[in-house]
Amino acid sequence: MSRIDGRTPDQLRPVTLERGWSKHAEGSVLISFGDTKVFCTASITEGVPRWRKGSGEGWVTAEYAMLPRSTNTRGDRESVRGKIGGRTHEISRLIGRSLRAVIDFKALGENTVVLDCDVLQADGGTRTAAITGAYVALADAITWAQTKKTIKAGRQPLIGTVSAVSVGIVGGVPMLDLCYEEDVRAETDMNVVCTGDGRFVEVQGTAEAEPFARDELNALLDLAVSGCAGLDTAQREALARTL
Amino acid sequence: MSRIDGRTPDQLRPVTLERGWSKHAEGSVLISFGDTKVFCTASITEGVPRWRKGSGEGWVTAEYAMLPRSTNTRGDRESVRGKIGGRTHEISRLIGRSLRAVIDFKALGENTVVLDCDVLQADGGTRTAAITGAYVALADAITWAQTKKTIKAGRQPLIGTVSAVSVGIVGGVPMLDLCYEEDVRAETDMNVVCTGDGRFVEVQGTAEAEPFARDELNALLDLAVSGCAGLDTAQREALARTL
Amino acid sequence: MSRIDGRTPDQLRPVTLERGWSKHAEGSVLISFGDTKVFCTASITEGVPRWRKGSGEGWVTAEYAMLPRSTNTRGDRESVRGKIGGRTHEISRLIGRSLRAVIDFKALGENTVVLDCDVLQADGGTRTAAITGAYVALADAITWAQTKKTIKAGRQPLIGTVSAVSVGIVGGVPMLDLCYEEDVRAETDMNVVCTGDGRFVEVQGTAEAEPFARDELNALLDLAVSGCAGLDTAQREALARTL
Amino acid sequence: MSRIDGRTPDQLRPVTLERGWSKHAEGSVLISFGDTKVFCTASITEGVPRWRKGSGEGWVTAEYAMLPRSTNTRGDRESVRGKIGGRTHEISRLIGRSLRAVIDFKALGENTVVLDCDVLQADGGTRTAAITGAYVALADAITWAQTKKTIKAGRQPLIGTVSAVSVGIVGGVPMLDLCYEEDVRAETDMNVVCTGDGRFVEVQGTAEAEPFARDELNALLDLAVSGCAGLDTAQREALARTL
Amino acid sequence: MSRIDGRTPDQLRPVTLERGWSKHAEGSVLISFGDTKVFCTASITEGVPRWRKGSGEGWVTAEYAMLPRSTNTRGDRESVRGKIGGRTHEISRLIGRSLRAVIDFKALGENTVVLDCDVLQADGGTRTAAITGAYVALADAITWAQTKKTIKAGRQPLIGTVSAVSVGIVGGVPMLDLCYEEDVRAETDMNVVCTGDGRFVEVQGTAEAEPFARDELNALLDLAVSGCAGLDTAQREALARTL
Amino acid sequence: MSRIDGRTPDQLRPVTLERGWSKHAEGSVLISFGDTKVFCTASITEGVPRWRKGSGEGWVTAEYAMLPRSTNTRGDRESVRGKIGGRTHEISRLIGRSLRAVIDFKALGENTVVLDCDVLQADGGTRTAAITGAYVALADAITWAQTKKTIKAGRQPLIGTVSAVSVGIVGGVPMLDLCYEEDVRAETDMNVVCTGDGRFVEVQGTAEAEPFARDELNALLDLAVSGCAGLDTAQREALARTL
Repeated sequence: MSRIDGRTPDQLRPVTLERGWSKHAEGSVLISFGDTKVFCTASITEGVPRWRKGSGEGWVTAEYAMLPRSTNTRGDRESVRGKIGGRTHEISRLIGRSLRAVIDFKALGENTVVLDCDVLQADGGTRTAAITGAYVALADAITWAQTKKTIKAGRQPLIGTVSAVSVGIVGGVPMLDLCYEEDVRAETDMNVVCTGDGRFVEVQGTAEAEPFARDELNALLDLAVSGCAGLDTAQREALARTL
Repeated sequence: MSRIDGRTPDQLRPVTLERGWSKHAEGSVLISFGDTKVFCTASITEGVPRWRKGSGEGWVTAEYAMLPRSTNTRGDRESVRGKIGGRTHEISRLIGRSLRAVIDFKALGENTVVLDCDVLQADGGTRTAAITGAYVALADAITWAQTKKTIKAGRQPLIGTVSAVSVGIVGGVPMLDLCYEEDVRAETDMNVVCTGDGRFVEVQGTAEAEPFARDELNALLDLAVSGCAGLDTAQREALARTL
Repeated sequence: MSRIDGRTPDQLRPVTLERGWSKHAEGSVLISFGDTKVFCTASITEGVPRWRKGSGEGWVTAEYAMLPRSTNTRGDRESVRGKIGGRTHEISRLIGRSLRAVIDFKALGENTVVLDCDVLQADGGTRTAAITGAYVALADAITWAQTKKTIKAGRQPLIGTVSAVSVGIVGGVPMLDLCYEEDVRAETDMNVVCTGDGRFVEVQGTAEAEPFARDELNALLDLAVSGCAGLDTAQREALARTL
Repeated sequence: MSRIDGRTPDQLRPVTLERGWSKHAEGSVLISFGDTKVFCTASITEGVPRWRKGSGEGWVTAEYAMLPRSTNTRGDRESVRGKIGGRTHEISRLIGRSLRAVIDFKALGENTVVLDCDVLQADGGTRTAAITGAYVALADAITWAQTKKTIKAGRQPLIGTVSAVSVGIVGGVPMLDLCYEEDVRAETDMNVVCTGDGRFVEVQGTAEAEPFARDELNALLDLAVSGCAGLDTAQREALARTL
Repeated sequence: MSRIDGRTPDQLRPVTLERGWSKHAEGSVLISFGDTKVFCTASITEGVPRWRKGSGEGWVTAEYAMLPRSTNTRGDRESVRGKIGGRTHEISRLIGRSLRAVIDFKALGENTVVLDCDVLQADGGTRTAAITGAYVALADAITWAQTKKTIKAGRQPLIGTVSAVSVGIVGGVPMLDLCYEEDVRAETDMNVVCTGDGRFVEVQGTAEAEPFARDELNALLDLAVSGCAGLDTAQREALARTL
Repeated sequence: MSRIDGRTPDQLRPVTLERGWSKHAEGSVLISFGDTKVFCTASITEGVPRWRKGSGEGWVTAEYAMLPRSTNTRGDRESVRGKIGGRTHEISRLIGRSLRAVIDFKALGENTVVLDCDVLQADGGTRTAAITGAYVALADAITWAQTKKTIKAGRQPLIGTVSAVSVGIVGGVPMLDLCYEEDVRAETDMNVVCTGDGRFVEVQGTAEAEPFARDELNALLDLAVSGCAGLDTAQREALARTL
């Protein structure tokens, strides 16, 4: 059973991770999942938000946005509308939670990392590409800070790896890493965030048409875990390259 | 192993559903899950949003909010701050999707139902109480509209039942329907929305501390399915009472 | 001459005051004037706004809002519109001024009380019910703070009682405590806030149709003073009950 | 008993009304009450707001604002803060209601008049000066529209005259037309809007310090009625001059 | 070749500068360029914005706005719309930069001057009138502060004079100080800000219809320099008068 | 006299123009001026804004924005702050005007082109790179529309070419195409927009430190004209390549 773009149901789209895409950011990656391209930067600064001051612990937060013409028809800019939409809020919060899951805040010290994930081109799976790319930008920013001694030696702030992928049931078939056309047609759509050891950080499944049964959920989770393992490999290879 | 409030791990808090709490709304319910109280109204009006006009299909949407002193310390009003926060957006969207899952939009005709879920008192599980209560308010509003002939006879717009419950791992133990104190201490927190036949509409699990393993996820899903079955019974009983 | 709901022109609607309606707030009341129901909470916190710091004086402020379906047809949420309307601003300010009139700020010390008045169901007179209920919530919050020693013993911060009622000329007849239908038809509409000793804190009269003459104004003031006396009794009885 | 500026308690400040102060507006007046200067324009356009279309009736609305340095210390611009404050809302609504009280909307036809009242210099009584000036600008705009035949001949849309003045109890003495220094020291402050025949359009009294008694209220109303009679004369004289 | 209002192409409109127009502001001017009238106030306060604290240097900033009926058809208030438009932003920034060009911030000390330029009536050239008037208000505010010893004696904070004028090509003819009708018809429109010694602070030329050639640009600059010399004289004469 | 990056004063930075960078937009270019990278998309849709309907003429508008970490230190997102800053407004308007200068709106027909210019990396000259890149994206979008017959054959909507460059006086030396470090140190800073035939569309010069003299202005204009000629060549070469 072949998919729109010729993949098998359990196959990821081609993944590329270009590190060092920004000369300013402490960590930066241009990630692509097929035609989906997200520019992720990690900005690290000394200090933490007020509510965390004096705790000795750092903070990691994320902001996601789409360029107005990253989609097939142009969308309004949220800055022009004067407010951020619910979807943007939801995804920014998801990215932040996902990355915080692999951080030891004590080891980070009172430093803040902001992860900016800007979608340059969208073709499904932008939030999962954002999480996967943001991890690599975050790793580079932490290495940078360790080199600059902004983060103290000794304890490693990054205590795991994290990646994310979408899965869904399309035409009755569970599929991995949906492109836009598949996403639109999916009866059930799930985003799964896993650590490198195969455990879950986030599981968000939504019945778009029909409610889904427990065995369908299980099939999707199996696909997601194997997809994240593939992304974990891509992340490791990217980080192994010389910056 | 006893919980803060003496429940067993697989036990719901006392659930009450008072229908007809508003003299104005077409459907209204004051629902409580223990000390969590949410006032749900369903407002039905003729017509649909512009993008749906002429489709012959209706629409269902939801808005969730917390009164400023529904919580232990007073929160700012979102109207005063001039913008809606990410959490509010996220929950409003979740409620809307959950209720749309049991609606036949063709049978609803070009009518719109707005579900307002205002938290009067919060003690954990406000979004799941909101979904569970909104279902009953929606059912009453649809009955009202059928009586008034705003909705045509023949096809039933409500094609299933839906309820929601939170589950989580607290101190290593999977537990059903977390109160606020449990929620704060949970390592993993999940909100599950089920239809009356035990299938899933939404599954949203988040690792608050440690990533969670597949068997933990399974234990939580088992609890949630049984909890929703209990809520389904409470909904049916409430709807069976004379309004 | 009988009114829509059978009352005489100088008769209040049934008034109920349920104290302790919130487990979180320091003072809370669900007040009803007939079908008008307002949930009033008083939140007391240490500290005052910046402009009052170091003065040794406290502060009392109020926020009024209507739930979207508290009215016959659903209104937009002000949080969703991103701004507070003029009417809401006006009423919030009125409630704050009215309650400040019976406070000794020195005796309150550098503490702030926020009075939240959320209309659950509207049938005319929501602002006057809010003031009348907020007084009782405020009294309970101050007692709470005195018990907790947040407010020093000695001087009593509450130096009087305050209640409010609407009056109007409907079909040429001056009437007390207008319900919504009467309010809509009123030629002149007035809201009067009195202290327990029959003096005025606020008098706000508006000609809705015809300008009104001095003797009409006098007749309305007479009605209002007697109405407030009745509300004062209801407040005293409510506060005399064990919480 | 002499006042700060040498007036007797029942004396108005010098009132000037310069008509035709704008070359663009259909009606315009620069009004001064002593050092308080308000620039009032009346803009008349064909058509009415959506909710009034097809009614055959017109509409009159008002917007009040203060220039940032109209006061002793500079205030922020509401445009810069991105929202309108409660006081501005309240006063704009008061001006609109006051002027609508003397309009026959049928005779106005489906035309809209916007009254802009911008305070150039503030020294107490800006809202009452605004109402008094706006009346003259409105009268000129209606005359203009009658000349241009935008308003049909026959019935006169202006069915009365309206003016406003502040009164208050300062140091125990009821006084007319308070300047800023008096206003700050007033125990009770009242704004009264009267028609030319001495009836009331709005009465808004506020206890700033002590609640006020019925006889104090009566004394203030007496002063206000006589003050408005003086303003009525000033308006008539201004309108009698050739534009 | 005569212009709409009979001027020669190189002639300014009548310029008036009335100082001391506000009793509150430290400096204030009502400036007119023909029918364009701008009310400029300079408010000086101790202290500087946070980013400049401790620098020993002052700050000068400006805010420009148009009254809603300063134009031929009424415009919406930016405060009501809840945001400032691009044109307003642009002009406010231009005025601020222009006046900062003649300030020695060290000599000003840690004081801030806010220049408010509110257009009471518009007939072309409002931004250039604003700059020209703001200079005089600024000069008066600095003199005031020197008298009050808020600014230390010794060094003069005002190190030059500045004025501005519009020029444009209308019907092929380069013209000075365009009124609204000319501005609308101009093929090229330029605003030029000059110091009293004939050098440039800002040059902003825009092709409204056809791109313009170098010799046209030169002709416009010649006109602007001579226009600013005339304005410089008017400013000096105004400042020479007793306040 | 050599510059920071080794260029001569009259030398542009390396310019690259990558067309077709987006699979969705009708025209798209990634332009770089040295380390400044701007992603420009042209989105063409049928229809025009309301105020232009029925005119038979099209419209071209632009929106400029910087990614939060396009700069050396991260800036807040304007969408998060809820309003667009003055600088963003100013530049968006400049880009729009510049591109409209080379459009025949009749030939465009009732179609709208939105030019989005998002700065991915900033190193001075972002607005001039945006204009230069937007021209190429616009040209491609128009060709696309001609192929799709959305724009009628016959008349060419693009009636000229346009590019832009910054110039400035740095350390007393007039220089072309300033990088960020030069820009910060510039005494005078000018942005010039030229058509391919060497005429001016916009000239915006600002004295950052000292006012500038006429001969300095002339030297800067000479540099800008020659710089734009170089950019014009780069644009032609880019458009000559097969997409």
